[in-house]
Amino acid sequence: MYALKDFGSFHVGGRMVEVSGQSTETLRFSANMAYEHDPNGAFLIEQVYVQYFIPVEQRHKTPLVLLHGGGLTGACWETTPDGRPGWLHAFLRQGFAVYVIDNVERGRSGFCAVEGIWQGKPVGRTQAEAWDLFRFGRQADFTANKPYPGQRFPLHALEAFQRQFVPRWTSTSPAQIRGVGAALRKIGPSVLICHSQGGYLGSCAAVENPDMIRGVICCEASGWPASEAITAETVGGWPWLLLLGDFITESERWSQAKTDTAAFGERVNAAGGKAELVELPDVGFAGATHMFMMDTHSTEIAGWVGDWVRGNC
Amino acid sequence: MYALKDFGSFHVGGRMVEVSGQSTETLRFSANMAYEHDPNGAFLIEQVYVQYFIPVEQRHKTPLVLLHGGGLTGACWETTPDGRPGWLHAFLRQGFAVYVIDNVERGRSGFCAVEGIWQGKPVGRTQAEAWDLFRFGRQADFTANKPYPGQRFPLHALEAFQRQFVPRWTSTSPAQIRGVGAALRKIGPSVLICHSQGGYLGSCAAVENPDMIRGVICCEASGWPASEAITAETVGGWPWLLLLGDFITESERWSQAKTDTAAFGERVNAAGGKAELVELPDVGFAGATHMFMMDTHSTEIAGWVGDWVRGNC
Repeated sequence: MYALKDFGSFHVGGRMVEVSGQSTETLRFSANMAYEHDPNGAFLIEQVYVQYFIPVEQRHKTPLVLLHGGGLTGACWETTPDGRPGWLHAFLRQGFAVYVIDNVERGRSGFCAVEGIWQGKPVGRTQAEAWDLFRFGRQADFTANKPYPGQRFPLHALEAFQRQFVPRWTSTSPAQIRGVGAALRKIGPSVLICHSQGGYLGSCAAVENPDMIRGVICCEASGWPASEAITAETVGGWPWLLLLGDFITESERWSQAKTDTAAFGERVNAAGGKAELVELPDVGFAGATHMFMMDTHSTEIAGWVGDWVRGNC
Repeated sequence: MYALKDFGSFHVGGRMVEVSGQSTETLRFSANMAYEHDPNGAFLIEQVYVQYFIPVEQRHKTPLVLLHGGGLTGACWETTPDGRPGWLHAFLRQGFAVYVIDNVERGRSGFCAVEGIWQGKPVGRTQAEAWDLFRFGRQADFTANKPYPGQRFPLHALEAFQRQFVPRWTSTSPAQIRGVGAALRKIGPSVLICHSQGGYLGSCAAVENPDMIRGVICCEASGWPASEAITAETVGGWPWLLLLGDFITESERWSQAKTDTAAFGERVNAAGGKAELVELPDVGFAGATHMFMMDTHSTEIAGWVGDWVRGNC
């Protein structure tokens, strides 16, 4: 049972792009209805969709904002591939108000259909790519379906997980950082929980909007703000929790990410901030993959994260 | 306050497309993380996202399934552009379990990024196009911001409405009809409430999955199933409510749609079914635009629709 004081959604941010000089074209919305579509005019792009859930018993004043990673949408916080409740549910049960973002070009935010505005093309993802990138197992062992021993992702539901994949551009980070900032400024001071590419975008948005932040939890961020963006003013006012899962040493990419994460934490602390790097196996969560909000111990990890927020933010 | 027994989401349906013979390319997920992306392999496309809300006090056994129109997502049922609760909330308060679909290529369902699978390009929408298409006013009066007298769309929030617009393909109806069918078969027997392009897709999915239908409410459908699809077996087992808003005679397109709607209703009744065409001004809702789930009397219209479901389904 979930007793919600309120829930709903809004879109925020974005900008207008003007198209002119194009010919109209006849489109068919259905077999029976044709329409003379005018591709000229002002199109709104780069807005951000936010869905929110406010519990009746809100036991922590500051809301949580959940920001998904690359190739995914806010749906990744709603359910695990094997159908268990997601972190959204876990945090609601802990008495947090929760805001879930679909970042620019993902999910209900929509994407830019005006050609020439965004560089490059959207790319999709196969199960094979996810297997390696998300540390379910060695790339060479994908075909044999032989994961890392003890890994906790529900691999029997890998196809259900693939249904959550959406295409993503790789050129839209600046718009996405602006989008997260617009969402934060609308929501108000928050604890930001961000995953993977969202860890990069979220940490960049956090240092650009320090007055809207009460804490940042980066779950295996794929990147960090530039060194010059890290000052006492931008990172000094709240705690950072930098989380990493298991099997890091199995992956060159994630070994490098661990090095970068540690370096970011040191820069934050040197600037007078407070950053803490925690590897989940060290606090009782062996087998955590890159998708630890979906692993079979996901609810327990959410409990640990909630304790950290209650103790630090 | 909303007391929910459960809420969450799932993805369903879709198919695999195989890509081969393409070169890998280096992508940057963030400034710090490059990745050798392999565009070959099995990509899952045409899945459908469904978000559900089950009230603690479910006063009607059959759930409602809400299907958005073209260029929109399930978000259109969650909030009005001026920030009032949407039909999702109205039906929950009436004690219905509600399932909200993002159809194929919209919102959290994602789209197909593999080239050559879908025909044509996605197209966006301007405020000017919405003004005419959704019957806020005469096309010629858009620039002067002079709507139809008495129209009830919250036009002061037109830019917020535009943030809900997402690009749409015009070649994906067969996949979308399959997607709605897959969602219905997962949800089970339902009353389907579908809008505009969703009215076309939803009515087609209904006659293809008659055992999953307990009633269909088409809100200004933009098209209908082919005549040969209408038989006692496909439409005879449940009631159809065909709703139209106000200002129909102002628009050649919607005048034609009204003619088509009446003809469809007659075909359903001739086949032994039970279809009812209702123009909203005739039941107390003057000023209803094409977007009547967002008009200023949207909650009252949802009450009337709920009464119809309680009385007929």
